[in-house]
Amino acid sequence: MSRLLEKHGIQVGRMTPGATNSITDVDGVMVGHTTLIEGENVRTGATAIVPHSGNLFHEKVKAGALTINGFGKAVGLPQINEFGMIETPILLTNTLNVGKVSDALISWVLPHYQRPDCSITSLNPIVAECNDSYLNDIQGRHVEKEHVFHALDTVSADPVAEGVVGAGTGVSAFEFKSGIGSASRIVRLDGENYTVGVLSLPNFGRREELVIKGVPIGRELRDYEREPHDGEEGSIVIVIATDLPLSHRQLVRIAKRASFGIARTGGICHNGSGEFVISFTTANKVPHDPKRIFLEERRLNDAHSVINAVFQATIEAVEESILSALFSAETMVGIDGHRRGALPIPEVLSFLKASGHSYS
Amino acid sequence: MSRLLEKHGIQVGRMTPGATNSITDVDGVMVGHTTLIEGENVRTGATAIVPHSGNLFHEKVKAGALTINGFGKAVGLPQINEFGMIETPILLTNTLNVGKVSDALISWVLPHYQRPDCSITSLNPIVAECNDSYLNDIQGRHVEKEHVFHALDTVSADPVAEGVVGAGTGVSAFEFKSGIGSASRIVRLDGENYTVGVLSLPNFGRREELVIKGVPIGRELRDYEREPHDGEEGSIVIVIATDLPLSHRQLVRIAKRASFGIARTGGICHNGSGEFVISFTTANKVPHDPKRIFLEERRLNDAHSVINAVFQATIEAVEESILSALFSAETMVGIDGHRRGALPIPEVLSFLKASGHSYS
Amino acid sequence: MSRLLEKHGIQVGRMTPGATNSITDVDGVMVGHTTLIEGENVRTGATAIVPHSGNLFHEKVKAGALTINGFGKAVGLPQINEFGMIETPILLTNTLNVGKVSDALISWVLPHYQRPDCSITSLNPIVAECNDSYLNDIQGRHVEKEHVFHALDTVSADPVAEGVVGAGTGVSAFEFKSGIGSASRIVRLDGENYTVGVLSLPNFGRREELVIKGVPIGRELRDYEREPHDGEEGSIVIVIATDLPLSHRQLVRIAKRASFGIARTGGICHNGSGEFVISFTTANKVPHDPKRIFLEERRLNDAHSVINAVFQATIEAVEESILSALFSAETMVGIDGHRRGALPIPEVLSFLKASGHSYS
Amino acid sequence: MSRLLEKHGIQVGRMTPGATNSITDVDGVMVGHTTLIEGENVRTGATAIVPHSGNLFHEKVKAGALTINGFGKAVGLPQINEFGMIETPILLTNTLNVGKVSDALISWVLPHYQRPDCSITSLNPIVAECNDSYLNDIQGRHVEKEHVFHALDTVSADPVAEGVVGAGTGVSAFEFKSGIGSASRIVRLDGENYTVGVLSLPNFGRREELVIKGVPIGRELRDYEREPHDGEEGSIVIVIATDLPLSHRQLVRIAKRASFGIARTGGICHNGSGEFVISFTTANKVPHDPKRIFLEERRLNDAHSVINAVFQATIEAVEESILSALFSAETMVGIDGHRRGALPIPEVLSFLKASGHSYS
Repeated sequence: MSRLLEKHGIQVGRMTPGATNSITDVDGVMVGHTTLIEGENVRTGATAIVPHSGNLFHEKVKAGALTINGFGKAVGLPQINEFGMIETPILLTNTLNVGKVSDALISWVLPHYQRPDCSITSLNPIVAECNDSYLNDIQGRHVEKEHVFHALDTVSADPVAEGVVGAGTGVSAFEFKSGIGSASRIVRLDGENYTVGVLSLPNFGRREELVIKGVPIGRELRDYEREPHDGEEGSIVIVIATDLPLSHRQLVRIAKRASFGIARTGGICHNGSGEFVISFTTANKVPHDPKRIFLEERRLNDAHSVINAVFQATIEAVEESILSALFSAETMVGIDGHRRGALPIPEVLSFLKASGHSYS
Repeated sequence: MSRLLEKHGIQVGRMTPGATNSITDVDGVMVGHTTLIEGENVRTGATAIVPHSGNLFHEKVKAGALTINGFGKAVGLPQINEFGMIETPILLTNTLNVGKVSDALISWVLPHYQRPDCSITSLNPIVAECNDSYLNDIQGRHVEKEHVFHALDTVSADPVAEGVVGAGTGVSAFEFKSGIGSASRIVRLDGENYTVGVLSLPNFGRREELVIKGVPIGRELRDYEREPHDGEEGSIVIVIATDLPLSHRQLVRIAKRASFGIARTGGICHNGSGEFVISFTTANKVPHDPKRIFLEERRLNDAHSVINAVFQATIEAVEESILSALFSAETMVGIDGHRRGALPIPEVLSFLKASGHSYS
Repeated sequence: MSRLLEKHGIQVGRMTPGATNSITDVDGVMVGHTTLIEGENVRTGATAIVPHSGNLFHEKVKAGALTINGFGKAVGLPQINEFGMIETPILLTNTLNVGKVSDALISWVLPHYQRPDCSITSLNPIVAECNDSYLNDIQGRHVEKEHVFHALDTVSADPVAEGVVGAGTGVSAFEFKSGIGSASRIVRLDGENYTVGVLSLPNFGRREELVIKGVPIGRELRDYEREPHDGEEGSIVIVIATDLPLSHRQLVRIAKRASFGIARTGGICHNGSGEFVISFTTANKVPHDPKRIFLEERRLNDAHSVINAVFQATIEAVEESILSALFSAETMVGIDGHRRGALPIPEVLSFLKASGHSYS
Repeated sequence: MSRLLEKHGIQVGRMTPGATNSITDVDGVMVGHTTLIEGENVRTGATAIVPHSGNLFHEKVKAGALTINGFGKAVGLPQINEFGMIETPILLTNTLNVGKVSDALISWVLPHYQRPDCSITSLNPIVAECNDSYLNDIQGRHVEKEHVFHALDTVSADPVAEGVVGAGTGVSAFEFKSGIGSASRIVRLDGENYTVGVLSLPNFGRREELVIKGVPIGRELRDYEREPHDGEEGSIVIVIATDLPLSHRQLVRIAKRASFGIARTGGICHNGSGEFVISFTTANKVPHDPKRIFLEERRLNDAHSVINAVFQATIEAVEESILSALFSAETMVGIDGHRRGALPIPEVLSFLKASGHSYS
């Protein structure tokens, strides 16, 4: 969880995080990981995000999807935007493993969500990916069905494990080791607290681009334990969860703000970056039930500016989740002896301290 | 109204039309026209569609917009799709008059919708257009502020006047005289009747493309009173109104079905065609009121296939509105002595009769 | 091939077909099928479309992708539209088999396209699907890696086998047996002949919707050997190939015209229909080569209306490919004893003949 | 020009600016302003950007358009993205003046670009806007035809006048006085220098959001001469010009990077912000000439990562143009006695100096 940043006195943005500063602060959301580190070449995994603990196929969640830069292989996005819903868990894995993982996701959904009176003959699995080929034998497609099942079967509402876990096992950002990151923010509206939670898988950025709280840390650390350039440009997958009652259109609007969070860490959205955002709300679940012709729903009024607080929460949580992935990840050696060093936290803290504006 | 088709025994599609087979069958919707026929060169006008008779700025209607082929100058579309709403009447006019008409629309809205406690400093006028330059002195931009005011001040819930009126004054389709057309269909859901109404401004198509109820009438009439080719490719604007409670996403979905109605008349969506669709619902009006943070709304459940009836209704009403514009329009002579002949109804009826399948 | 339609004297549209009236009339394009008919429950398959016989990863083809109605699980579309290119063959299969097939496609591409000096660590497989669950045990996901390899290894430039083959093995349209269909049209520009070819997999439509050459055949055959309604709404995948030098933007523009071809057969784009279009050109192949910073390309000028002929060709070829799938498919019995009867051609011909306008 | 930033030792980004650090560094591009400051209430104007000095209707420039947040009234965007071209100058003005200005733009284009043998009956004027109602009598729509003509008739290739000029006369950003800003960057490719130039009209942001070179200046100046909140959320229009040979798809890709430049200044893209980006290239002009069926074009190969330098250049130029607007603008008093203070440059410099990382 992003408490590592807090522990170091680093506060990102000005809004209040949720109880654990993690996507699981959104009530009902659960996350599970399978981490594969085997021999010298296998450095990969799978991460499952489950929007709620019920029967997701029969109680779908409203969702939106956005492609920032489409050099990526995410599956399931067109149907999200046609129907504004998600009906399976969201899986993250490596680029070449998407086919296997989406097939495994179907294998998991059928026995878990199918009811005797309703055969599932159509299903829209959601899988997104990052390229971990610098450390991992990506062509081996080592994430097998049992690994997907393990991630799904071990999901929990605990604070998300961050860093070198799950789909984050082999990824890098700003030429430092990266991994899974998460954060959350509280939005108070009409006397109630709502939560925006983010889980991200940052795998992008040149060293010199990294910015932390406005300080050009990447430039300062330009030559710090830097390996020869690997030619890959990386990607980022961002999953946004909330319990705010938002429509599909509004969920796409908050997804659009993810770019602003990426930009705050110095990202420029490279040519070869697959940047995808999936947002969903646990409010107003939609029954898979042909008898209900009309639905009664409550939704945020965005005719006026109250939604700005949701945008701000999203941007801050995206920014913090990226930084948290970097702070949590440890140095790793993988395929072909490639080494990806962790962010040197003491040096970072020192540069932050040297900047005139307080980082706490 | 499309009763002209009915009078000739032509039934379009298989669903039941509303009481007047016109967009004004949707409760609250009103239409007004200003028709400009002056001297030998002025053949143009303006048509106003008002979603409801209240204060539209303060009680906005949910809306969607779609560009089929973007060779057109419609204004106001980006904001429709960002906020999913319309806050002014919709005006139709000729291509080069859009600027003047959108300015006049602002001039009309300010005194009509502004309240003492709420100054209007931002407003999104909706104006779409067709090119009437074959018959009209389009560079003259003859639609002035008073003409826009007249169309707005004379709107009525009566069956829509069709043919050579308003923005339809100078347009052509399939190289016959065209104009304004309208139609409606009833959709019965959950024991209630709802209405889908369409108003269209068809200004597209080569003669040989015209199809009526599957019969290639255009091919049969290929050389009927045909003038030398004028080089313009035309456009179509389609406005869809309903009282069904649909979300923005669903309103865009029904807008997408307009293409299928156009195709049934033989249209192929030429390169130089500005094909725009604007859809709105009078259900779930959205108050311009910052105090309402959440809204309670009822909406159609499109997780299952009941929405197909709405799609079918849209397609049939679009098809019929185009044919109705053709059947209603009378021969006109305009600028440079250009003549555009009306569809020869007796010949059309004769071809329809000769086809093996009944047209009634 | 669509010669079956020609044999019956049915001419679709007014443009001239290519030599075999098949997508393979586009020079270089090859198609292969694997047809799986086993026991009583397996009625499915895979179809591979290969844009050219060279190394497709290293000589990518320009492409566009369009979602008409996104109830579908096609993979690879976001990257097509970001980079405007395809780098793998296109595979068609059943809905739940997409994961397996996309993984198998990677397994086929790696040994075929990888060069010693260029490791493939990122790859965008293109797979689209239709739902064949009325006749097929779709949950069984019976299309295995070897079936994908077989389709890819047996591609040929011969006229496309149509009807009950490949991914078309288990599909239905208008509640008749459907399958694979193909057609082509010649476009003459600047003294040269160019070809637009289409392969489609039509799996959509209620019986009463079917229209052939404007004649409401489906209404006439409403009760012909009709089985109880199966609840599925179907889909259609359309692949458009051409040798015309078109840009990405132009390839998306022609993809948009596919709707008009679907509409001519009576399709209305149902709620639960996955309607995807993928278009590509074999002109202006793009090398996977970082040394070429600028490319010299020739492209069609669409500032004027010559592109209309390409739109017309696309619409006609889409329409004919759908009809050809119906005319070519034979009655099939599958899972749970479900039976899907073939289109009764003599009856259809008789209705066409009875219509006043000639169908030849 | 952004030399004001340079004068103060502030370097934005790491790439080299063009000769004048202004959009007019792109060869051929010209800019003109009409500034309206009359009495106590009129604080508005118009800015014209002309892509080249020739006949723009007959030598169109390739272009792309992007809506970041569509609360805005820009006109002309759908056609830009259908045809990938611009055929008129781009005009910027205030929100309620768009209709008048687009009509005036037509009035200017007709006599300037129409040729005897080619009557202009269709024209796509491009106008974008910001809301200057805090200082200006926006309902008065004071920008008249003659003001548009003056801006167009006085365009020049000189370094762009910045700050309180043209459409920037009445705008604010981060609750400081803003205006017109411009910047440029050199991209060296294949041994040649190309230029990316930006002109922006920033009118967005809460005080506390402002960030300059990573330093949270807005938080430091939270209470500096702050007037009561005015309730408007503002907008930004960004015009990107280049001489790089880019396709429509690529021009949209660079437009997408504008968000990252906005984010670097602290922008979060508020709910009520109209954020529009228009990009064009002066390379590969497209003749308005039906005789040319095919065009020969050179374009950047973005199959690999050379385009990243263009993205970086765009982001830096957008960021700098926004800051330059702030640095150039002077305090203004307008309607209802509203006062908008200029950015206090000495204080800003002092905060930048106090930050540990050098700002020079």
